[in-house]
Amino acid sequence: MDDADFALIQRLADATGDAIRPFFRARFEVETKADASPVTQADRAAEAAIRAILEKERPGDGIIGEEYGVVREDAARLWVIDPIDGTRAFLAGRPLFGTLIALLEEDRPVLGIIDQPIARERWIGATGRQTLFNGTPATTRACSTLAGAHLGTTGPYLFPAEDQPRFDRLRGQVRDTIWGGDCHNYGLVASGHIDLVVEANLQLYDFAALVPVVEGAGGRMTDWQGRPLGRESDGRVIAAGDPSLIEAAVGVLLA
Amino acid sequence: MDDADFALIQRLADATGDAIRPFFRARFEVETKADASPVTQADRAAEAAIRAILEKERPGDGIIGEEYGVVREDAARLWVIDPIDGTRAFLAGRPLFGTLIALLEEDRPVLGIIDQPIARERWIGATGRQTLFNGTPATTRACSTLAGAHLGTTGPYLFPAEDQPRFDRLRGQVRDTIWGGDCHNYGLVASGHIDLVVEANLQLYDFAALVPVVEGAGGRMTDWQGRPLGRESDGRVIAAGDPSLIEAAVGVLLA
Repeated sequence: MDDADFALIQRLADATGDAIRPFFRARFEVETKADASPVTQADRAAEAAIRAILEKERPGDGIIGEEYGVVREDAARLWVIDPIDGTRAFLAGRPLFGTLIALLEEDRPVLGIIDQPIARERWIGATGRQTLFNGTPATTRACSTLAGAHLGTTGPYLFPAEDQPRFDRLRGQVRDTIWGGDCHNYGLVASGHIDLVVEANLQLYDFAALVPVVEGAGGRMTDWQGRPLGRESDGRVIAAGDPSLIEAAVGVLLA
Repeated sequence: MDDADFALIQRLADATGDAIRPFFRARFEVETKADASPVTQADRAAEAAIRAILEKERPGDGIIGEEYGVVREDAARLWVIDPIDGTRAFLAGRPLFGTLIALLEEDRPVLGIIDQPIARERWIGATGRQTLFNGTPATTRACSTLAGAHLGTTGPYLFPAEDQPRFDRLRGQVRDTIWGGDCHNYGLVASGHIDLVVEANLQLYDFAALVPVVEGAGGRMTDWQGRPLGRESDGRVIAAGDPSLIEAAVGVLLA
């Protein structure tokens, strides 16, 4: 990951925003995938826009995308794409969905972007760099106790059956919970407006971009056992603005 | 309610937006009210801005506000104000809270505005007029079955104990549910992006402004028994983009 990648990921997000905006709040047919997640023309147009640029400018890199699958999956550098994270929010006309793009090296996310093309909010994070929100440094806030923590999570029933009571236990110990938000919640952690996000059942393309954003702002992301996130992770994630919250959250989730 | 009121309510929302924006995503002390709802300096500044204008321009009208209580409550015309609906969303830095202002005549809402001052989204509705979204006519969409309906609601645990199983029953019959959103969900119903909002435990200032917005766009709002909403209502509300959905929702909620 170098300055050229850091510049490229922003051009990728510019391209997806251009592809997505015409479809926002337009009426169109909604397909239903096997997992009941709606998928839209916007999703496909956005991912196609990214792939066209990557195939031209980084022909040796691998790509994993939600819509169009995997190419060169054994490449040392792997771009991981979720063109519209929060498809339900998108379909509902809520400007809180986001495009997620990550670069993995040795199966670890080293560069990531969360881009909200309607509200024009963009977080970029990279290993060893300060996270930027719309070009300005973003910093998480201190909050070392669950009792003081403001938690965000997309929905109450998105957890696998065995995880539901674990999450509910955690929710019972935080100060309050805000619902909905998808990837935007992780940006709010990076900018120090909420303290904690706990989710499960995520795919690699749902969380890879979030890690450099949250960690480059001073926070920490792990799985529910406190381990770093990477290609092998199981889809359970914790994002904490204050790294010391991770241990407390893991303690409750594993109790 | 006349053209002057229709113009006035927009000036009121302009003033609250100006009062609120400086506090959004700024760090400040959070008070906790007895009901645990956070209240902010922005809340008070916004309501004070509205009251200053109303006291000058409509000195005979009554006012009910969330922050500063009631004046002239027996007046024939009553302005009902929630300066920041969705205080948690506001504090979390989410641009989906809203200012709600309504005018009641004979205890019925005849004029209402939902104003989101960060994303600059504004719905205005009035009895006998077409609802406007940012100055353009807003129209709900057809959806006559619960099985096809996209439901929005702010949180899964905001219902009184006896209402929780009723709501959960309804939720089990709709196509999908999107969480969070506060008043913004009702705007999305008015604009035809979601079909249904079902909530409870609302105060008059939480729902009065929503009624003219949803109904002026072709939808319908009632309580959980299908009765029109007004000053005497119990805080349980249904908003349906397609009026025929009301009967289906009531049937499930009362079953």
